[in-house]
Amino acid sequence: MENIKQYVQENKERFLNELIDLLKIPSVSADSAYAQDVIDTANAVKASLEKAGCDVVELCETPGYPIVYGEKIIDKNLPTVLVYGHYDVQPADPIELWDSPPFEPVIKKTDVHPEGAIFARGACDDKGQMYMHVKAFEYMIKNNCLPCNVKFMIEGEEEVGSKSLGWFVERNQDKLANDVILISDTGMISNQQPSITTGLRGLSYVEVEVTGPNRDLHSGLYGGAVANPINILTKMIASLHDENNHITIPGFYDKVEELSTEERAQMAKRPFSQDAYNKALDIATEYGETGYTTNERNSIRPTLDVNGIWGGYTGEGAKTVIASKAYAKISMRLVPNQDWEEITELFKKHFESIAPKAVKVKVSPHHGGQGYVTPIDGIGYQAAAKAYHDSFGVEPIPVRSGGSIPIVALFEKELKSKTIMMGFGLDSDAIHSPNEHYGIFNYLKGIETIPLFYKYFTEMNK
Amino acid sequence: MENIKQYVQENKERFLNELIDLLKIPSVSADSAYAQDVIDTANAVKASLEKAGCDVVELCETPGYPIVYGEKIIDKNLPTVLVYGHYDVQPADPIELWDSPPFEPVIKKTDVHPEGAIFARGACDDKGQMYMHVKAFEYMIKNNCLPCNVKFMIEGEEEVGSKSLGWFVERNQDKLANDVILISDTGMISNQQPSITTGLRGLSYVEVEVTGPNRDLHSGLYGGAVANPINILTKMIASLHDENNHITIPGFYDKVEELSTEERAQMAKRPFSQDAYNKALDIATEYGETGYTTNERNSIRPTLDVNGIWGGYTGEGAKTVIASKAYAKISMRLVPNQDWEEITELFKKHFESIAPKAVKVKVSPHHGGQGYVTPIDGIGYQAAAKAYHDSFGVEPIPVRSGGSIPIVALFEKELKSKTIMMGFGLDSDAIHSPNEHYGIFNYLKGIETIPLFYKYFTEMNK
Repeated sequence: MENIKQYVQENKERFLNELIDLLKIPSVSADSAYAQDVIDTANAVKASLEKAGCDVVELCETPGYPIVYGEKIIDKNLPTVLVYGHYDVQPADPIELWDSPPFEPVIKKTDVHPEGAIFARGACDDKGQMYMHVKAFEYMIKNNCLPCNVKFMIEGEEEVGSKSLGWFVERNQDKLANDVILISDTGMISNQQPSITTGLRGLSYVEVEVTGPNRDLHSGLYGGAVANPINILTKMIASLHDENNHITIPGFYDKVEELSTEERAQMAKRPFSQDAYNKALDIATEYGETGYTTNERNSIRPTLDVNGIWGGYTGEGAKTVIASKAYAKISMRLVPNQDWEEITELFKKHFESIAPKAVKVKVSPHHGGQGYVTPIDGIGYQAAAKAYHDSFGVEPIPVRSGGSIPIVALFEKELKSKTIMMGFGLDSDAIHSPNEHYGIFNYLKGIETIPLFYKYFTEMNK
Repeated sequence: MENIKQYVQENKERFLNELIDLLKIPSVSADSAYAQDVIDTANAVKASLEKAGCDVVELCETPGYPIVYGEKIIDKNLPTVLVYGHYDVQPADPIELWDSPPFEPVIKKTDVHPEGAIFARGACDDKGQMYMHVKAFEYMIKNNCLPCNVKFMIEGEEEVGSKSLGWFVERNQDKLANDVILISDTGMISNQQPSITTGLRGLSYVEVEVTGPNRDLHSGLYGGAVANPINILTKMIASLHDENNHITIPGFYDKVEELSTEERAQMAKRPFSQDAYNKALDIATEYGETGYTTNERNSIRPTLDVNGIWGGYTGEGAKTVIASKAYAKISMRLVPNQDWEEITELFKKHFESIAPKAVKVKVSPHHGGQGYVTPIDGIGYQAAAKAYHDSFGVEPIPVRSGGSIPIVALFEKELKSKTIMMGFGLDSDAIHSPNEHYGIFNYLKGIETIPLFYKYFTEMNK
């Protein structure tokens, strides 16, 4: 694999243009208006796997969007790597905050990315990181150095809970049999300091609806005499955190693992500047659960955030109305050992219990997933660490991420194998936000690093 | 005026069709998309006043929408009635809850309106009630029984705070000189029990904006570590009421008049069924300030209601985002003696003071107006009471309304004359709501009653 750097340099332009073509298709899985685009993206990924050298590639039908499956089996006795990624993306709104159209990729230099970055929805999450694996695979095929078997499973519903993937995995355990699962859908500390994500938070996502009067009312004639569902909803949501920003749902913390002082000290070693963090977000001060640092709050602690709220008149000007209904989308990030379905139940029970008699409340679970921790003493992690070390010349640091890839816990349950999260994105890449981008350095470094993982993982398996 | 009933019967169809034509124009003042329709409505009103017999009719330019002014001066020595009304309407949304298009009027029978009601936005508030005055005036001209001078002032910004009307009135005190102001923009208890509105609440309407991070963030990577502006906004709004639903803004109640036990006992005489009220709104129980009845809560007590709230992802499906901004439209209904500008200041100061350091808060006053009380021993009220008694055969009851017509207090200040609120709508007419309607009985009864007010008011002035 000595010539990987050279191969990447020689094919750099093509690698970028192929990704840009993929980013032009608005595969927003959360919005049915984009259904055809999601399908088109699946087909584009399928074609790219065929071109790269898979023997078998298929669009596997599911209850939802199809899963792109591809494989190259060179020797039944060699280990098998299962690559997972997703071809769907987050909605682009608020569209007006994008400096360039989210589905018309442009390359611009930034302070963090002096070599340029591709700006587009999905550039980093996850089309860019998923496509690194396709190009790394292409390299190993073209240069006859694929050391093991490989299977690809690229889904189209990650941003909406991976329902169909769960359905698919449960029904295809033999087809998906593997020795390790490889995912690039997370980030690293910086381009100078690589890191490997060893922990993910779980997720419970619900939508709540509060109904007051059976119709919108004139706030003058009824104001003060009937329960205003928006006022009530704000009271109910506000009560979900106490003055220390602890979540007040009974039983919510029962299964949360308390890390030892040593572990927390270990985490604290990670280079981090609260000032730089606050400056980057233009906030006067951080905010969160009493007794924990920023990096603990967003990784080892569970959280509850309102992701969306709406009700009443939100148009131009003023309307003196008491709305009949108010709504909120609320998600809870969970830590290992918290069961997302149990937490969803606890939330539902509690939220319904705190509603005043004057309103009706409906809690609709959206989706969820379990948290996950990767053992850093396993060969999967060891192989990944060596690969990063070779390509970056620096030892990677193991990091717990606050994000969730619900499917990872399901992989372990159904496929009985561990997942290695080799992420090459940066926190500043603005995934899920306007102006999402992915560094060209990161994209190419990923393509360089992945084949090394295959090499070391195969050797360590001998 | 013996033949008024006959005249109304003979012209009933035409009266209805003329109003229906007016209701077809979507004069939504809050939404600039309807600007031309608002202007078209002003012209339609102008034409109707010319046709009815005004000597002078003009569209008076203002900084906003024009004011339709018309007059018929028969004798400088006779008293002058100034009729006020508005030709703009509330926005129609939520449009999907209308049984028929809001600007395609239809006549349907209801339990409350066995003779039929016109369903359309503005049917009752205020096109229908305003147009009664045009038709009553037409009757008095055609039958040579106009007993005094009359001036019409019909504005197009009542639903957005009457800014331009204030500007106009301050500059045209001579032109608008009058002995009494007559408005039909309120309701009455029922078609069997007429009532006259003797009190109005003031209004302070503000919009608030809470800004957290400078961009939308991934709720997994940042959740729990930065202030979520939606969570913060809910906490701030929730804190505006205490456990007794008293408003917590310091100084808010300082100038609120406490009614005597006698006055409250008088009010309590008004026929009212809490069960029927709750049933009509499909609510399990009423809700409001401890220590006051429903009719006190919505008339003699000030209130604070969120009229709209929005932030984050509100589309289909799920988006795990922490929004950069969250917004709410909040209105406070005020009682006599509370100064709306002072209350707006108190709100602004308090709301800014309760914001945690981790967010930025902006409070933008929208508009407002003072409360008002009509003396029931004045000849204006007496003349109105006699008019209702003649046409309904029942003595009207004086009632304090929870609604606001901010301009009424300004009339008293600038024009030094009292306002009589002869409203013919019903609470069940769903003004400001989907399926707004106005009873044909009420429309025609209004046309019958108004000339009697002119008659008695002129006589009592002698």
